[in-house]
Amino acid sequence: LMKTYRYLLAGLGNIGRSFLEIVAERDSVLRQRYGIELQCVAVGDSSGMLINAEGIDTLAIARAKRQKHSLSGVHGSWLMDAAPVAALDNVDLNLVLDATPMNMTTGEPGLSLTRQALQRGINVVTANKAPLALNFAGLAGMSDWRKPGAPRLRFSACVGGAMPTINVGVFDLPCARFKRIEAVLNGTTQLILEMMANDSTYEEAVRAAQRMGIAETDPRMDVEGWDAANKLVILANTVLGIPASLADVSVTGIGPATANEAKAAKIVGERLSLLATAERDGEGFKLTVAPTPLPTTHPFGNLTGAEMGVIYETDIYEKITVISHETGPVPSAAAMLRDIVNIAIGI
Amino acid sequence: LMKTYRYLLAGLGNIGRSFLEIVAERDSVLRQRYGIELQCVAVGDSSGMLINAEGIDTLAIARAKRQKHSLSGVHGSWLMDAAPVAALDNVDLNLVLDATPMNMTTGEPGLSLTRQALQRGINVVTANKAPLALNFAGLAGMSDWRKPGAPRLRFSACVGGAMPTINVGVFDLPCARFKRIEAVLNGTTQLILEMMANDSTYEEAVRAAQRMGIAETDPRMDVEGWDAANKLVILANTVLGIPASLADVSVTGIGPATANEAKAAKIVGERLSLLATAERDGEGFKLTVAPTPLPTTHPFGNLTGAEMGVIYETDIYEKITVISHETGPVPSAAAMLRDIVNIAIGI
Repeated sequence: LMKTYRYLLAGLGNIGRSFLEIVAERDSVLRQRYGIELQCVAVGDSSGMLINAEGIDTLAIARAKRQKHSLSGVHGSWLMDAAPVAALDNVDLNLVLDATPMNMTTGEPGLSLTRQALQRGINVVTANKAPLALNFAGLAGMSDWRKPGAPRLRFSACVGGAMPTINVGVFDLPCARFKRIEAVLNGTTQLILEMMANDSTYEEAVRAAQRMGIAETDPRMDVEGWDAANKLVILANTVLGIPASLADVSVTGIGPATANEAKAAKIVGERLSLLATAERDGEGFKLTVAPTPLPTTHPFGNLTGAEMGVIYETDIYEKITVISHETGPVPSAAAMLRDIVNIAIGI
Repeated sequence: LMKTYRYLLAGLGNIGRSFLEIVAERDSVLRQRYGIELQCVAVGDSSGMLINAEGIDTLAIARAKRQKHSLSGVHGSWLMDAAPVAALDNVDLNLVLDATPMNMTTGEPGLSLTRQALQRGINVVTANKAPLALNFAGLAGMSDWRKPGAPRLRFSACVGGAMPTINVGVFDLPCARFKRIEAVLNGTTQLILEMMANDSTYEEAVRAAQRMGIAETDPRMDVEGWDAANKLVILANTVLGIPASLADVSVTGIGPATANEAKAAKIVGERLSLLATAERDGEGFKLTVAPTPLPTTHPFGNLTGAEMGVIYETDIYEKITVISHETGPVPSAAAMLRDIVNIAIGI
């Protein structure tokens, strides 16, 4: 019995493009092993939307984006300047994939898209943290996270890319009483801290990370700790089940002054990492993001700039650590595919 | 909507007893958060079976076992010397939990129990590796692993206790092409190798591990590498989807001569571990268990005697590492609870 997902993909940056390439390449595995047929009926970026109810040639889209050509040249109806949410009115679809850029002020265009899709009973897979970090309670209340039978909202790419951060916390440790969560969730600061430990200045390290395509042109979300804080908020809401928001996180980022700390840590055989922690505090949890020196015997003491990790300390399962090593956008795109397969098999 | 599982628990060693204690303590979480009601209608050990269709007082059972009293004193019908499989004919149940001791020659009593339960359409959660390692193909063919719609067979406690080894490999990395799996799956050899690196002889280390209740009286399954090989066979069948059996694994264990290797590794800053690996070999995989020196920068290079780990190297998800830290039987019992909750939510 084949399950057919007719999907909209909003956002065609590195992750969106990689997603189209992966699913084209894994089409027969998806059909044969999982009984899943994926059909792209709408794609959009900031220039507009392409819609084709018969199915869009996704490799032609990926190619156009890589070559910086307009999507309007690919077969389908081109809606110039249309927001992704326009697809919901213009084509029959049953899955929305949000890979639009993060906007931490408004959450748009992802927030409207996710909200309207859920309102119409459409499952959403998102790689965009902003709508979740800004409005978790609202989106959870419209989806299966808080409302049984509501459409599913999945976002594993948002909290560590391919690292199964949420799945392990939610599905693999049921009935656990969590004592503490420790996590390294931001790759950019890992890389900058590593370079500073090796004698780069802060400015040199940021520029190098930007040249490598890892730090954003405006690196503040990463270096000021807000990216890690967003992920911690999502973890707290999902794994710990507490209604936390960004205002509940004590956030300390990294900056020029952190270079000395990073070097000092290295001298005593430690590694400075931007650690996100949730620790029990009475009936609730204290949420913190701050640069923290870790000994090499700590599970995160030897992480490279390409690695992230999470440690769940619980009562009945004791301690479970997950570490991911990712060098490009493909693992985050694969995480969106994981979410789709999980939805299809009923998780 | 409450799901009620009327279960048989076969085997009342450390894991079985811990399971009864955990589920008694988490009863209200199971009901409120997961909508699961667990009712024990039969328990058995090597002395016989206790059956009570109205529900057995599980804490009384756990207490009797801890105090080495007979189960026959707990309220219910006592079937002296009855095999666990007898419960299937004597009481209405819809879940079988197998925590019976491993018998690598016959697989009994777990093999008959699991087989007959599956044949009757009853879901099985097992912590007993022997039936799986001896007859994976047979049991998979009777369960949802190979037969859609058949009853579920879950065994996460068999491959690393609380470590979500199978779940991560199967549910979190869909469509992955696996390049390599590396795993430390045997705690006893980890502990013995650690003690030998710290100048114990093999005999001293084995005796110490036995006194700690970690090594068996007959330690051969662990030290000769068969326990790790069993787990690798289960991993290969489930995560890699290949029909491997024990005969396909090249197995080298540890012994008195390994003490020097363990010390030599320590001197150069490495750690000798009994590593289980699956590496791509043409269209198939080469399966190996052997003592292997690991540098401290290896994710397993700093594992203590209480830790196990698995690394999945894939194409689209790149590298995912999971490490567990467990000091007693509770995490393995919790893994059985995870399997039950997973079955209830449809995984």
